[in-house]
Amino acid sequence: MSLVIVGSVAFDTIETPYGRREKIVGGSGTYCSLAASFFTQPMIVSVVGEDFPEEVIDLFKKRKIDTKGIEVRSGKTFHWEGRYGNDPNQRTTIRTELNVFEDFSPQLPPDYRPAELVFLANIDPDQQEEILNQAKEPKLTAMDTINLWINLKPDSLLRVLERVDMFFGNEEEIRMLSQEVNLVKAGRKLLERGPSFIIIKKGEHGALVLGKEFVFGALAYPCEEVIDPTGAGDCFAGGFLGYLDRVNSFDEKEIRKAAVYGSALASFVIEDFGIDRLKSLSLSEIEERHLEFKKLVSF
Amino acid sequence: MSLVIVGSVAFDTIETPYGRREKIVGGSGTYCSLAASFFTQPMIVSVVGEDFPEEVIDLFKKRKIDTKGIEVRSGKTFHWEGRYGNDPNQRTTIRTELNVFEDFSPQLPPDYRPAELVFLANIDPDQQEEILNQAKEPKLTAMDTINLWINLKPDSLLRVLERVDMFFGNEEEIRMLSQEVNLVKAGRKLLERGPSFIIIKKGEHGALVLGKEFVFGALAYPCEEVIDPTGAGDCFAGGFLGYLDRVNSFDEKEIRKAAVYGSALASFVIEDFGIDRLKSLSLSEIEERHLEFKKLVSF
Repeated sequence: MSLVIVGSVAFDTIETPYGRREKIVGGSGTYCSLAASFFTQPMIVSVVGEDFPEEVIDLFKKRKIDTKGIEVRSGKTFHWEGRYGNDPNQRTTIRTELNVFEDFSPQLPPDYRPAELVFLANIDPDQQEEILNQAKEPKLTAMDTINLWINLKPDSLLRVLERVDMFFGNEEEIRMLSQEVNLVKAGRKLLERGPSFIIIKKGEHGALVLGKEFVFGALAYPCEEVIDPTGAGDCFAGGFLGYLDRVNSFDEKEIRKAAVYGSALASFVIEDFGIDRLKSLSLSEIEERHLEFKKLVSF
Repeated sequence: MSLVIVGSVAFDTIETPYGRREKIVGGSGTYCSLAASFFTQPMIVSVVGEDFPEEVIDLFKKRKIDTKGIEVRSGKTFHWEGRYGNDPNQRTTIRTELNVFEDFSPQLPPDYRPAELVFLANIDPDQQEEILNQAKEPKLTAMDTINLWINLKPDSLLRVLERVDMFFGNEEEIRMLSQEVNLVKAGRKLLERGPSFIIIKKGEHGALVLGKEFVFGALAYPCEEVIDPTGAGDCFAGGFLGYLDRVNSFDEKEIRKAAVYGSALASFVIEDFGIDRLKSLSLSEIEERHLEFKKLVSF
């Protein structure tokens, strides 16, 4: 199969109880593509400024990520700054400099258009919709978002939601969108709007996958140290969709496994700052953790 | 084996989005004993006032609960009033009338003393300690508590914690006691104080069991309607310990199963107000749900 990922490639300045890093490489598209690259050869669509380091593009290429869709424009790369306290689930955004992302009009290169899997990582829902309009009958479309867009552009967001097959959201986003406190009920309400799968990301509590006919619960790996939580949700989606792309199937059995691979990827990325842990990660480590997830829940 | 449960037998006035019930039967000892009674014949130690209905004692007897340890004293039965909003994990205590529980000095009847399993449900830690002093070399002692005692009597509580084999607490209590945000780290810190097992109850997110050598994660059953969350934690502990008492083993394999039986009991009790669902519940329904828990996490 073939997986297109549309998301941000950015600089992040991050402070956690374990330290501070200035302008390291991040962005939803970056994390998601790197995570997916352990299973498949994703194609990425994004935009960066002239200040973006060539060696990161080289890293993408080394990991067999198709970077043709990364536009380089004059100006500065998107820069996000955030801070986490002792609770890794709580983060404060210090600043968001959209820079070249501000008036980004994402374009699918011609050979990306027939992709069978299209993932709209967290970006402006209007940009997400532009991509949907360009894709040629993908087998599966998936989207992520953040509460910012639920507040800012609820109508655009709901329009995209109704067109995709799979929606990724965290607990807060799922509750906000559905206006329902009970997560299972909230997920079912969103299923009624169109998607076939609602994936509820619960941070340290794992994830809940709601299909039309089944519910699957994936635990989070019991990490004792969360060095930097940035990118966990993007790596979850990247591992999830990368695995599905590899096995070329969306049946319940594979969806369950995909959620566990997603959790595994998320559990690795938080072990170090930014994308550092993904650079040293191997598929055998992922497979080993997949087995540990089995032990964690078996009874 | 033989299981002694020390806890409250009380009246609860409860308001949830599904309605209001005045002075229905509740209390940690009540929920816990009824839940355990599906697996074993527990012995209960508690105190009630003269206003406590005989038919509830008869219900206990019908479910083969030994009620010899329920003292009837002149005065009124313990009465708790609470309210839940849309989020069943958030409750507000409206009033607590300890009544006959106020100066309760719990006594183990002579034939309870050699019990192999002793559970100290949520009561004053000084009362919990009195029981520990009376028990004759139990194979396993377990305790539960609430944040009230962590604030009010931290020293007493820690003294009991150091003497028991198993500690049940919810996320907030585990974090308060250990002064650690990360739940796995928090649990490990408490393990170092003495217990062999720390059971972290996470409500709708399930439970985490930490042993010295393993971690087990049990999901919560994906309930869409929580009619009345009261007693869920007590039923979790009752199902857990009742099952262990029946199988007469505390090895890792049985501890894992016990946590799932606990989750099953908790998932049933919240389907109706007070103890109503437990009255109609059957062992075959519990076994069926146990299988559903397997499907929920299998991949």
